[in-house]
Formats: sequence, structure tokens, C-alpha cells
Amino acid sequence: MCELLGMSANTPTDLCFSFSGLTRRGGETGPHADGWGVAFYEGKGVRSFHESCASASSEIAQVVETHPIKSETAICHIRQANVGNVCLANTHPFTREMWCRYWVFAHNGQINNFSYQPGLYQPVGETDSEQIFCDLMNRLRQNATTTDTPEQLSGILVELAGEYARQGVFNCLLSNGEWLFTFCSTKLASITRRAPFGPAQLKDADVTIDFEAETTPNDVVSIIATEPLTTDESWDIYQRGEWKLWSGGEVITSGQVQLPEPEAKK
Amino acid sequence: MCELLGMSANTPTDLCFSFSGLTRRGGETGPHADGWGVAFYEGKGVRSFHESCASASSEIAQVVETHPIKSETAICHIRQANVGNVCLANTHPFTREMWCRYWVFAHNGQINNFSYQPGLYQPVGETDSEQIFCDLMNRLRQNATTTDTPEQLSGILVELAGEYARQGVFNCLLSNGEWLFTFCSTKLASITRRAPFGPAQLKDADVTIDFEAETTPNDVVSIIATEPLTTDESWDIYQRGEWKLWSGGEVITSGQVQLPEPEAKK
Repeated sequence: MCELLGMSANTPTDLCFSFSGLTRRGGETGPHADGWGVAFYEGKGVRSFHESCASASSEIAQVVETHPIKSETAICHIRQANVGNVCLANTHPFTREMWCRYWVFAHNGQINNFSYQPGLYQPVGETDSEQIFCDLMNRLRQNATTTDTPEQLSGILVELAGEYARQGVFNCLLSNGEWLFTFCSTKLASITRRAPFGPAQLKDADVTIDFEAETTPNDVVSIIATEPLTTDESWDIYQRGEWKLWSGGEVITSGQVQLPEPEAKK
Repeated sequence: MCELLGMSANTPTDLCFSFSGLTRRGGETGPHADGWGVAFYEGKGVRSFHESCASASSEIAQVVETHPIKSETAICHIRQANVGNVCLANTHPFTREMWCRYWVFAHNGQINNFSYQPGLYQPVGETDSEQIFCDLMNRLRQNATTTDTPEQLSGILVELAGEYARQGVFNCLLSNGEWLFTFCSTKLASITRRAPFGPAQLKDADVTIDFEAETTPNDVVSIIATEPLTTDESWDIYQRGEWKLWSGGEVITSGQVQLPEPEAKK
């Protein structure tokens, strides 16, 4: 499996603190040592970092941890390989361009024997995750239009995500730089930080932060992760089938789809 | 304008030495201080680094300089903005997926009033360069097939490149990870290093290297750049309209198209 981390903020914000916690799970406090990647939107541009090695011992991950890259939307993934070799082409997040925007996707879970229908977007690597992403993009391109509102798009996304989640485990983060779509099949949690800001302590490293010193009173910053990253804050745990569309640090629309219990799949 | 750097090698090779020279021109020995980017293929995967700031003073560029990322094909660009703001979305190289491969493109030059015909691939930023890349991809997708040989593809690429070069300045590097297509409209130079290897001295920094200590006798590594990067080696200067398709460090096919003298465009 793997772990996901996303950020939605109303002002360009760095991900250093959360990223430091997550990357420890890539070979130190967790077994997700088969690659890591992160994508930061800057306006409509995206800058990505990917490596097919353990994040906990990566020199480049350390630079990302200590170099405050400011972004309003970011998606990060650490990988424990199940489908597909350990190699760069299989390392999330994946990116494709559609309608003059970069779309970035990361997946936690597995769909065995996913049936990818050849389309415009094709997978470069061997993972089920990238096949699902390409399927999602192909069907979005067919069923949505460039003028759809985020709410209209999320209707289609929820339908697709529900379909995938009925075939296996499908927790995902997807963004086009305007919003961050999050879907929980088995595990996802979020926290929204706003004034008055307080301190926080990472679960995976002996690191604390005082957000008050790092923020202005108007900042709203939400973090979404497969597992809570801090020990002294109260995270909202997503329900099975629950989805939220984030923008500027806030949930702009949300809901829940009915899914059979995961046991029923076995 | 801007500068280009490409590498084609028969074994995974780092770009540290050449990259160190090029990045000095991004704000120190040259005026190309409006962003930099580099893409390294690892198998079918690509890892990219992009920033919309000067490479000469970038902490992340310094990590790329000192961290030996091994690749058989790499494309690098430093930008001096002419068309489009200084921002990440306008920073080369640009990447798109086609036929289960990532295609990476960087451009030196300018085509005023380039007429982009809307197609499948669309530009995210505002540069003429990204419009040309999308146009090239759209027309390649229409006129080539996934089973075409590199030689067949290069026939189509040369035709397109010639057409662009007749409209303005078009020096480019393009790769799909299998080969590196290079086209010279006004300036491009190459050097192929193979045994017996010797030392080399960068033009832009007080850095020398002894390639013999860094290589094996079977290595073949070619560097392609808008301007020679070393002072004590003999670079091959491309002619106007000349193109070369590189793979594994060697030219696998090449030629020259007739172009009017650049003065005739003014």
C-alpha cells in the first residue's frame, strides 16, 4: 500500500512540517520505502519531485523538507509497491494535461485486474493506479466540459470514484490546481488549521511547530492524509464512501456514496 | 532568449558537470535568470525540476548539480523571458504523454504570432514555445503511429521543425525517452565523449573534470547545447537547418533542411 498527503490553502503555504512527518514513514516509521513523490501547484504550473527510493533517507526529500516551497494545492505520495516494479514510472503522483491545466493524481489502495479501456490518456508505467487515473481522465474528457463548475465536475468524479471503490480499495487525491478532490474508500483524515493557531507535534518525528509564528490571522490551511500526522490535534476521520472537494483550505462541497462493506469484497 | 542543454548516453550518466556550467549562465555569466528546468529519463519515467527563478542562485539547482542523477537522456533549459510572464507554467522543459511515453520538449528562439490550432494537447502557460510543442504533438499524433521507427518519426519531425524555423527562430530538443531529436535553426553544438577520455574545463565556472575517472571504456556520452560549455574541447557546430537524432550517445540519423537566411525574415 502507500500513504497520501494533500494540502489545500487560501494562501501560498509550505508543506515542510507535514511532509517531514510523512516522509519518515517512507522507510523509518513506516514500510513505504519504494518511492515518493510530491507535486506543488504554483499558479497553473506544477513542480514535482519523484524518486524510486525511500523518502526517509533521500537527500532530495530532505531538500523539499527544508526548502519552503509555497503552494495553495499540493499532493504527495509515498509508495509501498504492490502492483508494478519499483521504478520512477510507477511513482505517484501522476500528471496529465487536460483543458489547459495540469491534473495531478495519487492513489492509495489496489484494484486487482482493473480493466483499463484504451483511450486518449495511456499509462506509462505498470501500476493499477496510473491505469485508473488514465481511465478517469478519459471518461472525464468524454463526460464533462471545460466550462463545468467544480460542483458539476465533482458529480462526475464521485460517480467514477464510487465505481472504482466498488472494485477494490480506492482512496485518492486529485487536483487540477483550482480544487482538490478527495475520496475515502477505507481511510482518509483531514484537519483545517485557522486562527487562533496553536502548536502541533508530529507523530513520526520529534518535531513540533508553532503555527502562530508561521501564519497570518487570515490563513486557512487544510491537510488531508491517509493517517493523522500529529498527536495533539483533533483530525476529522472520513467515513467510508465520503468525499470532499477542497478549495482555498475550505470544503466547498462534500457527500458520501454508499459502498458495500470492504469485507464483502473478499 | 534562453539556452538549451541535452544529453544522450549509452549508459546512465549524470549531468552534473555540464549542468554546473549551464546554470551559471542563469544569472551569473549569462542573463537567462527567468527560470530553469531539467528533465531526466529513468527508464520510461521522467523526473523533472523546475523553478521560475535564476538557476545560478537556486538552492535546488545546486542540489541537482551535486547529486548525481543518472540518466541516458536528459533535457535542460534556462530561460530569459520574451513571451509570457516569469512563472512556473512558462518554464521549460514541457512534458506530455503520448502512446504510453512521456515526451519532453525545450525550445530556444521565438516565433512571433505563432498560430496555434486548437487540438488535443493544449498549452497551460502563455509561451509560444509551449504552443509550438502542443502543435507538434497534435500533428505527430495525427500523422504518425505508435509503431513508427525513430527514422520514420524523424521524417515527420524534420518537416514540422523546418516549418517552424521558417516562421522564426526554432532551436529545439525533444525526446520520448528512446531518442533525442535536435534541430538547429540558428545555434546548436554537440560533443561526443568516448574512450580515451580526457579532462575538460568549463567555460562558465572554474571547474575541471577528468572524464577518465568518471567513466568506463565503453561509455559514449554526447552533450548538445546552444553554446559550447567547455573551453578545451572541440565541439561540432550545427549548420542552419541541420538536425540529428541521437540515441545511446550516437547520431542514428541526421540531415539538413533548406532554410532562408535568418536576415530574410526581418
